[in-house]
Amino acid sequence: MDTIKIFSPATVANVSCGFDVLGFCLDSVGDDMIIRKTKSKGITISKIEGYKLPLNPEKNVAGVAGLAILKAAQVTFGFDIEICKRIKPGSGIGSSSASASGTVFAINELLGNPFNKKQLTAFAMKGEAVASGNEHADNIAPGLFGGFTLVKSLNPLEILELPTPKELYATIVHPQIEVKTSEARALLPKTIPLKKGIAQWANVGSLVHGLHTLDYNLISRSLEDNIVEPHRKQLIPYFDEAKSLAIQSGALGVGISGSGPSIFALSQGEIKAKQVAKAFQNVYKNTTIDFKIYVSKINSQGIKTIS
Amino acid sequence: MDTIKIFSPATVANVSCGFDVLGFCLDSVGDDMIIRKTKSKGITISKIEGYKLPLNPEKNVAGVAGLAILKAAQVTFGFDIEICKRIKPGSGIGSSSASASGTVFAINELLGNPFNKKQLTAFAMKGEAVASGNEHADNIAPGLFGGFTLVKSLNPLEILELPTPKELYATIVHPQIEVKTSEARALLPKTIPLKKGIAQWANVGSLVHGLHTLDYNLISRSLEDNIVEPHRKQLIPYFDEAKSLAIQSGALGVGISGSGPSIFALSQGEIKAKQVAKAFQNVYKNTTIDFKIYVSKINSQGIKTIS
Repeated sequence: MDTIKIFSPATVANVSCGFDVLGFCLDSVGDDMIIRKTKSKGITISKIEGYKLPLNPEKNVAGVAGLAILKAAQVTFGFDIEICKRIKPGSGIGSSSASASGTVFAINELLGNPFNKKQLTAFAMKGEAVASGNEHADNIAPGLFGGFTLVKSLNPLEILELPTPKELYATIVHPQIEVKTSEARALLPKTIPLKKGIAQWANVGSLVHGLHTLDYNLISRSLEDNIVEPHRKQLIPYFDEAKSLAIQSGALGVGISGSGPSIFALSQGEIKAKQVAKAFQNVYKNTTIDFKIYVSKINSQGIKTIS
Repeated sequence: MDTIKIFSPATVANVSCGFDVLGFCLDSVGDDMIIRKTKSKGITISKIEGYKLPLNPEKNVAGVAGLAILKAAQVTFGFDIEICKRIKPGSGIGSSSASASGTVFAINELLGNPFNKKQLTAFAMKGEAVASGNEHADNIAPGLFGGFTLVKSLNPLEILELPTPKELYATIVHPQIEVKTSEARALLPKTIPLKKGIAQWANVGSLVHGLHTLDYNLISRSLEDNIVEPHRKQLIPYFDEAKSLAIQSGALGVGISGSGPSIFALSQGEIKAKQVAKAFQNVYKNTTIDFKIYVSKINSQGIKTIS
C-alpha cells in the first residue's frame, strides 16, 4: 500500500471543567487527507484545498508532524500530503490538530503500524506546536484515540481513554470571528482561588464518574467551568445567549470549544442535539456574524481510513 | 428495637489530589456506640469512654447531629448516646465525623430508616460543624456510604459513591502530636497557580478512572498533591521520610489524612500494606513521638450494626 485516504475529524478540547486535559472526538466534520509514499526522502505538501496554509512542510503542522514520525522511522523514502481542509483554521475545533494527527496516523498505516497511539500523539504534538507555540495534546489525543480522552500529563505523556456513552451527541456552533490564540491565552488567569479549584476538580471527578456510569444527569451537572469560561467568553459574541438558549433546549452542558470561538453543547440523543442546533441558529441568525453549525455523535473510533 | 450497638469507622479525607472532595472508609479502627431510645424528648450523652469530650449534647458533635435528625423526625421520644471512642480526637482520621455519622445512622435505624444516606449526611454535617467550625462532608460521606466517596458539592449536597477496588488496603500512621485545625487551615493557600490546578484535576480525573478500571498503577500515579501537601506537611514531623520509605516499601501513594497529623498510604494487597506499616514504624520508632499504626482494608459498607 503506497497511498491512503483518511478522514481526520475535528475535536473539542477542554470540555468545560476539564480545561487543558479533557477532549472528545467529532464525527461529522473533519478533513480528508491523502498521503502517498514518495521515492525522495522527506515530506512534501502538494495540495491544500479549502483554506490557504503554507505548503512548506517545515512551516505546516502536518509537515512538521510528518517530519517527526519520519525521523523516528528512519526510512529511505518519504511522503506527500494532500489535504482537503473542511475545518477552518482558528475555529477552536482542532483544525491544526486534525492535520497533524491525520498525517502521523496515515504515515504509520503506510509504514505498517510500527508506532502506537501514544507515540503518534507525541509526533503530532511536534506539529501542533507550530500552530500554537507550545506542545499540547488535548485535541490530538481525541483525534488519535477517539471518544473522550484525558491527558493526565504531558511529561511523561499519558493519555487515558475514557468511556463514551453511546447517546452523547455534540452540537457545535462556529461563529466565524477571529479569536487570536495569544489573546485567548492572555485572558487566562495565572492564579485561581483554591475554592474554585476544588469545585473544578470535583466536577472533573464527577464527569469521569458520569461517563463510566452512563449517568447523563451527572454529566450535565459536571459540565461547569468557573475558571476559564468567565474570562474567555467575552471574546465570543452572544456566548451567554447561546448557552442559555441551548440549555433551555435540552443540552446537558454548553461551553467554549478549545479556546473558541466555537461553542460546543453535549446532549443526550440526536433529537435534542438538533434542537440545540436550532437554538444556536436562532441566536446567530439575527446577527451580522457568519456561522456554521454541526451536529455530531461522539466518534469513538477517531481518525478513519477511507481507502 | 429500642437499642442498637454499632461500629462507626475512621475515615480518610482529601486523599492527596482530592483535597476537600474525596474520602474513603477504614475498617479496622473506629468507635463503638450504643444508642438507646428514651422516653424523654431530646438527646442525652450518658457516657464517653476513651477520651474526654463534652457530655452536653449541644456541645458535642454526636449530640448536635442527634438533635438535627430528631428535629427532622419530629418524634415524641428521644435517644441516649454512649460512645466508646477509639479514634483519638484531632488525629486526622475523622474522629468527630465518626461520632456524628454513627449517631444519625443509629437513630435512623431505631426509627425504622425514614431517612436516606444523603439526608443522614446533612444531619451529621450539623454535628461536624461543632468540631470544625464549618459544615463539611468529606469524612462523613465515606462513613455513611462506605468505600470511596466524592463530595461533588455541598450546596446542593451531592455525594457520589465511587468503586472500591477489592485489593486496596490502607496503612495509617498517627504520630500523636497536636495539629490545630486553625493552624492547618491557615497554611492553606488562598490562591493557587492555574498550572497546579490543571495537574490536580487531571489527577482527580485519572484517580476516578483508575478506581473504575481497577488500574492500581494508575491509582498510584494519580495520588499526588502539589497544592496542599507541600504546605501542611511541615506540621507533621518526619512526613517526607515516612512518605519516601512507604513508597520504597511498595505503597501506591502516601499523603496527609484529612488535615493531619495522620498519614495514610494505599497499597495493593494486605501484605504490602503491612510492609508499609513496618516502614512507618521504622521512621517513628527512633523519635520521641508516640504513634499508632493501623492496617485496614477499605470498608465498602461503612458504619456497621453490631447488635
